[in-house]
Amino acid sequence: MTAPPPLDEFARIARFFAPLALPEALGLLDDVALIAGPPGEQYVLKTDAIVEGVHFLPDDPADQVAQKLLRVNLSDLAGKGAVPVGYLLTTSLPRERDEAWLERFAQGLAADQRTFGIALLGGDSVATTGPVTLSVAAVGRVRAGQTVLRRGAQPGDAVFVTGTLGDGALGLKTLRGELPQLTADERAFLADRYRLPQPRLGLGQRLVGTAHAMMDISDGLVADLGHICEVSGVGATVEAARLPLSPAARAAIAGDPGLRMAALVAGDDYELLFAAPPAAEAVLMTIARDLGVPVTRIGRIEAGQGVRVLDEKGAALPIAGAGYRHF
Amino acid sequence: MTAPPPLDEFARIARFFAPLALPEALGLLDDVALIAGPPGEQYVLKTDAIVEGVHFLPDDPADQVAQKLLRVNLSDLAGKGAVPVGYLLTTSLPRERDEAWLERFAQGLAADQRTFGIALLGGDSVATTGPVTLSVAAVGRVRAGQTVLRRGAQPGDAVFVTGTLGDGALGLKTLRGELPQLTADERAFLADRYRLPQPRLGLGQRLVGTAHAMMDISDGLVADLGHICEVSGVGATVEAARLPLSPAARAAIAGDPGLRMAALVAGDDYELLFAAPPAAEAVLMTIARDLGVPVTRIGRIEAGQGVRVLDEKGAALPIAGAGYRHF
Repeated sequence: MTAPPPLDEFARIARFFAPLALPEALGLLDDVALIAGPPGEQYVLKTDAIVEGVHFLPDDPADQVAQKLLRVNLSDLAGKGAVPVGYLLTTSLPRERDEAWLERFAQGLAADQRTFGIALLGGDSVATTGPVTLSVAAVGRVRAGQTVLRRGAQPGDAVFVTGTLGDGALGLKTLRGELPQLTADERAFLADRYRLPQPRLGLGQRLVGTAHAMMDISDGLVADLGHICEVSGVGATVEAARLPLSPAARAAIAGDPGLRMAALVAGDDYELLFAAPPAAEAVLMTIARDLGVPVTRIGRIEAGQGVRVLDEKGAALPIAGAGYRHF
Repeated sequence: MTAPPPLDEFARIARFFAPLALPEALGLLDDVALIAGPPGEQYVLKTDAIVEGVHFLPDDPADQVAQKLLRVNLSDLAGKGAVPVGYLLTTSLPRERDEAWLERFAQGLAADQRTFGIALLGGDSVATTGPVTLSVAAVGRVRAGQTVLRRGAQPGDAVFVTGTLGDGALGLKTLRGELPQLTADERAFLADRYRLPQPRLGLGQRLVGTAHAMMDISDGLVADLGHICEVSGVGATVEAARLPLSPAARAAIAGDPGLRMAALVAGDDYELLFAAPPAAEAVLMTIARDLGVPVTRIGRIEAGQGVRVLDEKGAALPIAGAGYRHF
């Protein structure tokens, strides 16, 4: 007799935690909850944690760690079209992290609070013998009934992404000393993309009323589009040749064609992924230009289920190990 | 030249985090934040984390760990007179924690959700190489402007506590194999008090409009009464002989008189501490009887600052090391 295979992160959530959830938690399928706010408003609630050695490196500057922590949560609010309100912060720090580290950490929070219009609501600090673990519970607000969930994708919709894909994962590689063939500028660009995601708050807010389904990409494009498809009861096709790549990512892929998979399966990009009617494309491109954030159509929503990726010849591209899973 | 002494937890919060806080965070002095809710209501937001080896023991049953996690947060809501709404959960688990552990953890959450009328709103799960770290961000609701803060204590108020004090710390000692002179029943009672705090939600809600200042005791009586005094701009005197002790705690103290300090300085009791006019005592005792929760008057609020503890002869009792501090 062999033991059954361990459940992955999503199966664990479905089995153990979904039965515990309020209706406001949307079956834990949307990664955010909505509760009633002041008249005409709802609050969006979201929590995301980052762990030293997984989401950031032990020698990353403390201010950038703080910024990444806030931004991964702000990115979730962006993915719902929400306006940031405030956040609760939990820090689990080894005793060796001294006041200089904490001071720089607070400076990073202060800088991003100004940039993104959010502020601290409270928190807790505990000591740990393990790696630094940082958790934020973010509160945003949306007009009542106007948030964009994951569940609204419809056959015939086009699939769009913001920014460029794969940079975060390639940035982590450069920080680990890989990709030595890149120029210093290319390496710096990619490292910055890993360390400092750009939450697309303004764009997310402008997509309310236009996008049928939306989320931020944190598990990788294929995995996250899979989440949208699953809860929307649809399938999707992505054309790999359309994926938006930065010049630095193109340079990395030129040196190692296998790295093109980063744009499909790697997390840590924190760009927005959304489904909208093809007729909205002109409006979307105007919004993108207004805000200076690239928006690219990469595929379509179809009847059926699952995500197919086609190469430039239209052949199905096998996708292995899609999405970062903690377990 | 010697290095300056490290800042303690509260000095760190004041120096690094208070400048980052929204007005709704009440200067981070109240351990909760208040944001506008539906008409006539406000939400109380609070986050508390627990760490294996600090707040619970590695071999504590997973269901009781889950219950302690929820209850320390519910106790904070109780301390504001709030009604529980929901919670966000972040789990940082070593990969060795298997599904049996997680299943029992979820069973503990489910049991307490039923008991206390709260449910899951969302969460995040990450893997760690360190100890189990669990964080909850709890949401409660209060009638707008009707929450009881720490800052309202007035000279002339009486100081009250619920339940009995010191049991949590003595329970931890029994779990570590100390206090062998106690009976098995006494040991079980104290261990249960450590593992399963009783959030005084019903009582807290009934104190709205009567208590001038309130909080739950998690850092120890003297430290927490000190927090109330500091933000209220008052002092307080506690009569040690009035502290409510359980029969098991009395038995422990009979064997080692030094253990009486547990009721004054140890955390982990999660009882309510509040200041109210002496004239309200009869009403308070009626509420206590209605709910079956003991309420004991232990001292008074005075002009001045700081907390004095008097022994049975009226002499000042020196208090060392008041309050659990993580740093």
